[in-house]
Amino acid sequence: MYLIIVYDVKEKRVTKVLKYLRKYLNWIQNSVFEGEITEGGLRELQAGIKKMIKDEEDSIIFFKLPAEQNMEREVIGIEKRSIDIML
Amino acid sequence: MYLIIVYDVKEKRVTKVLKYLRKYLNWIQNSVFEGEITEGGLRELQAGIKKMIKDEEDSIIFFKLPAEQNMEREVIGIEKRSIDIML
Repeated sequence: MYLIIVYDVKEKRVTKVLKYLRKYLNWIQNSVFEGEITEGGLRELQAGIKKMIKDEEDSIIFFKLPAEQNMEREVIGIEKRSIDIML
Repeated sequence: MYLIIVYDVKEKRVTKVLKYLRKYLNWIQNSVFEGEITEGGLRELQAGIKKMIKDEEDSIIFFKLPAEQNMEREVIGIEKRSIDIML
């Protein structure tokens, strides 16, 4: 499936979450990741993220699409992705 | 179409962008909106947002889906949407 993740976590956990999600997906904006993932990969990712965040303080939204082809992406302004490559 | 917008704009423009996007879509997390929109509505929204942001400092990503039915949403942690209602 194709997955988009948007997260809003407390500052002290941001770096940890960012590094963790990078193992599975591509970083495309400040707190947004996307990419292809298997059902098993998603379960693993979600289990890991649940241990990492605080349910009452953080929020992670998963948008699951059957395939990337169903979605069209458009960016206005900076393409953060290109900055990411330099980091 | 069904639209998801994720934005990362400089702090001084956040409130303006937030208020503007609220006219068209539903706020679901810190910097995430989603909802049904027509082609015309999207053109209007994008024209408005282009006047509002700085291309070299801000980033707005539009994910366009043919229909909400193609997408499954899952939230881990807080459902910000419920907080939004109280604001």
